[in-house]
Amino acid sequence: MSSAVADCVFCKIVAGEIPCQRVFENEHVLAFLDINPLSEGHTVVIPKVHAERLEGLDASQTAELARCFGTLATKLMQATGAGAYNVLQNNGALAGQVVPHVHFHLIPRRPDDGLGYRWNAKQAPPEELENLRARIEAVS
Amino acid sequence: MSSAVADCVFCKIVAGEIPCQRVFENEHVLAFLDINPLSEGHTVVIPKVHAERLEGLDASQTAELARCFGTLATKLMQATGAGAYNVLQNNGALAGQVVPHVHFHLIPRRPDDGLGYRWNAKQAPPEELENLRARIEAVS
Repeated sequence: MSSAVADCVFCKIVAGEIPCQRVFENEHVLAFLDINPLSEGHTVVIPKVHAERLEGLDASQTAELARCFGTLATKLMQATGAGAYNVLQNNGALAGQVVPHVHFHLIPRRPDDGLGYRWNAKQAPPEELENLRARIEAVS
Repeated sequence: MSSAVADCVFCKIVAGEIPCQRVFENEHVLAFLDINPLSEGHTVVIPKVHAERLEGLDASQTAELARCFGTLATKLMQATGAGAYNVLQNNGALAGQVVPHVHFHLIPRRPDDGLGYRWNAKQAPPEELENLRARIEAVS
């Protein structure tokens, strides 16, 4: 059984048609070093099955994907000497997704690495959050 | 059995001592609207058990946490009209972690929302990646 999509670069990596520096693999998941790393140890974790976004995976497939995060992060921290890391996953071009095959980034962080967000949080009025919660609950 | 940590704000939310706008809950997981949202629908997904970082959770606990992402994201997209989103999880103050209890952010994204990364990728020499892979593999 294969769900590989012909022109998907990550499906080609899963199939062994494009090489990668593999750091973890099991029946469901492949993790490899990003060839355009944001920092040393930047790793990409993907499902072997093709789906463009998280909504396209079954809950159990997403669960399998996340199962390796802790152990993998521990190894990355030990191997690179980094003390912190981000887990990041983008859905949709507007969110910064480049390859349309679900992937989680594990990004080791170090002091003064220059990485970060251009994200300014603001406090939401309580009634606005209450209203939004009701709208989310109303989605069938 | 409770692993609640006395001064942990997220443990207090789990215990019902601090209110939240809950959008999902099961035996293992609680998801609620961030009171300091980066965008409308910004949701925080936490394990009910206390752990500071992902490495502090069992693989199965991390899997349980991720299991709800797809369904929750679908609801958030429908309720807010956003078409894209980021999943972000920070480990360590250097990575931007503020509350020391594991939490995944689901952040709806919209055109021209001003959010984004200050993250510049650069291409890594293949031999550097090969060497790093070997170092990661060597971690016991």
